[in-house]
Amino acid sequence: MSNENEFIVTPWEVKGKIDYERLIKDFGLQPLTNELLKRLEKNTGELHFFLKRKIFFAHRDLDWILDEYEKGNSFYLYTGRGPSGSTHIGHLIPWVFAKWLQEKFNAKLYFQITDDEKFLFKPELTLEEIKEFSYENILDIIAIGFDPNKTKIFMDTEYIKTLYKEAIKVAKKITFSTIKAVFGLNESSNIGEIFFTSLQSVPAFIESIKQGKNIPCLIPLAVDQDPHFRITRDVAPKLGFYKPAIIHSKFLPSLAGLDKMSSSAPQSCIFTIDKEEDVKKKIWNAFTGGRGNIEDQRKYGGNPDICTIYYYLYYFFEHDEKSLKEQYENCKSGRLLCGEHKMYLTKLIIDFLKNHQRNREKARNIIDKFILRD
Amino acid sequence: MSNENEFIVTPWEVKGKIDYERLIKDFGLQPLTNELLKRLEKNTGELHFFLKRKIFFAHRDLDWILDEYEKGNSFYLYTGRGPSGSTHIGHLIPWVFAKWLQEKFNAKLYFQITDDEKFLFKPELTLEEIKEFSYENILDIIAIGFDPNKTKIFMDTEYIKTLYKEAIKVAKKITFSTIKAVFGLNESSNIGEIFFTSLQSVPAFIESIKQGKNIPCLIPLAVDQDPHFRITRDVAPKLGFYKPAIIHSKFLPSLAGLDKMSSSAPQSCIFTIDKEEDVKKKIWNAFTGGRGNIEDQRKYGGNPDICTIYYYLYYFFEHDEKSLKEQYENCKSGRLLCGEHKMYLTKLIIDFLKNHQRNREKARNIIDKFILRD
Repeated sequence: MSNENEFIVTPWEVKGKIDYERLIKDFGLQPLTNELLKRLEKNTGELHFFLKRKIFFAHRDLDWILDEYEKGNSFYLYTGRGPSGSTHIGHLIPWVFAKWLQEKFNAKLYFQITDDEKFLFKPELTLEEIKEFSYENILDIIAIGFDPNKTKIFMDTEYIKTLYKEAIKVAKKITFSTIKAVFGLNESSNIGEIFFTSLQSVPAFIESIKQGKNIPCLIPLAVDQDPHFRITRDVAPKLGFYKPAIIHSKFLPSLAGLDKMSSSAPQSCIFTIDKEEDVKKKIWNAFTGGRGNIEDQRKYGGNPDICTIYYYLYYFFEHDEKSLKEQYENCKSGRLLCGEHKMYLTKLIIDFLKNHQRNREKARNIIDKFILRD
Repeated sequence: MSNENEFIVTPWEVKGKIDYERLIKDFGLQPLTNELLKRLEKNTGELHFFLKRKIFFAHRDLDWILDEYEKGNSFYLYTGRGPSGSTHIGHLIPWVFAKWLQEKFNAKLYFQITDDEKFLFKPELTLEEIKEFSYENILDIIAIGFDPNKTKIFMDTEYIKTLYKEAIKVAKKITFSTIKAVFGLNESSNIGEIFFTSLQSVPAFIESIKQGKNIPCLIPLAVDQDPHFRITRDVAPKLGFYKPAIIHSKFLPSLAGLDKMSSSAPQSCIFTIDKEEDVKKKIWNAFTGGRGNIEDQRKYGGNPDICTIYYYLYYFFEHDEKSLKEQYENCKSGRLLCGEHKMYLTKLIIDFLKNHQRNREKARNIIDKFILRD
């Protein structure tokens, strides 16, 4: 990155301080307008704070999904997880939102675990290690509270008999040139990496295949996954399917600062399996917008706009709009000290994790209700 | 092709008059020497006429297979079929030879039907059409007389759950550069074509995976398939497996002439499902090395070295070495007329097909004994 305005967003690398406005232009997305949000609210009765706060900030064809829904044509949801490590809070954003959509629209959800992808793209990982991660990640998914009667989770390698026949139909329509242009893969890429996107397309029309008629699909995802579905949206009509609609989320910033990504450095994010002590330590050491000492903080106030404590609350832990606004103001005015704010966030995280971890343990007993295998 | 010495041999295209000596050099094969044939004969008691006549003409590591066999380490066989149309006599050469090897070495055989490959490489074919061809081709395979207790036939798309996990391990070791160099695929190739060779590698070590220890593998094949296994032989040791050994056959020439390939023009080859009338007509119209009229033939003799009638007998239908030699001499001397020779061949073909078609019908009832599915 040559300067601070440079950033990278691909399905396999997210780096730098992301300019989401520019991403909308670069990727050719539609911004999530207040008008569209109002229309969504008319159908759901309320808006999730992810929407109010524009954490989901862009879309493709969400208006069409609502057209269809309002005509009485229901849609299904599809999202996924690349199981290359433990789940952290950032991963949960599209999942929690998918659950909200499932409830509000009574929608079926396909949840793809791309174990093959992670094996192909991570030189150091074996299939056995990835299988472990997959299992652990699936517990987190189930812990979110999806409806077992409406939610199907599958690992690519375990559901491949169903997926592969459709994936080769997709693959037949995609040249290496396209892969190069969309993902930046090159001649040194392995041939599994080159093929993989075909597998990620299939769930975008799998329900249409199963039902033998076109069913609209909405994909809630983190925006780095959008390139896959640009390809899917190009191919789907050639195979007789609808283009899937997409709704895109931003990334939860790292605790090390807004321009640092979190997944690789364990101290810079909260994992769902973290213990109380871990959380306390990580939040205590997090990057804030505070002053060097208490006097300056009281006098000049802090800067919540660069503060990871504030962002953790904004993105996930503070559900109350009014309280969030007060915290923002109190930080700016110097009334709220970083230490106090950290303790407040720490408590919310620990409460969340206690509940999540309890659900996660229960998930071990009901996992079979969710899993699709050939 | 710029001149008559040009020829093309790839897994997806075979064109021109093939110079097998040059192919040995170009592909880096070992010629099947008389010494090696003698060693083979010591183990089998006799040599198939395919070997005596050098229809199988080259190999990779066949000596190693015999080393292992002589040490008491048995091997297994692997061959395949790309189901893009009806079976013709040329296809049967590696199959008949695989059956002979199975008998002589009491060897297990995996028979791969690459339905995915044909779908990916043939723009005009659908998976449904290919499924039809696969079924029809499998009947021909079974009709050859393989031992149902030692022979497993599978279609890639039906056995993909077993194959895919191994195929991505192969794929992870192969770059696009290699695919470009080995197969001549390019940026306009579809990403399924690029990935496909990974699937063709897997059966070369599937028995080792199943048994949890390394088992040597011998692959009888038509020489155009060799490029796939150059890759397999490169990758196998990296995954902890033996390199597979290979024994390569030449191509049965077309009835239209030695430099014409047969599969696309239905009049230029004999299909296993041809009727008597078809055979009579095709053989009557076949290209020969005969003279323009009977007088000249009697006077100057014919040229069996360019005669497709002679080659059909040489490659498949005349099992008797002495008789074949006499036919060659009698043609050259003018004693044997083309019409007589054609009638002789026609009878052998019709007898063969009667028997094959009977076995083919019986195969419908025992197909399940042979098929591997996930």
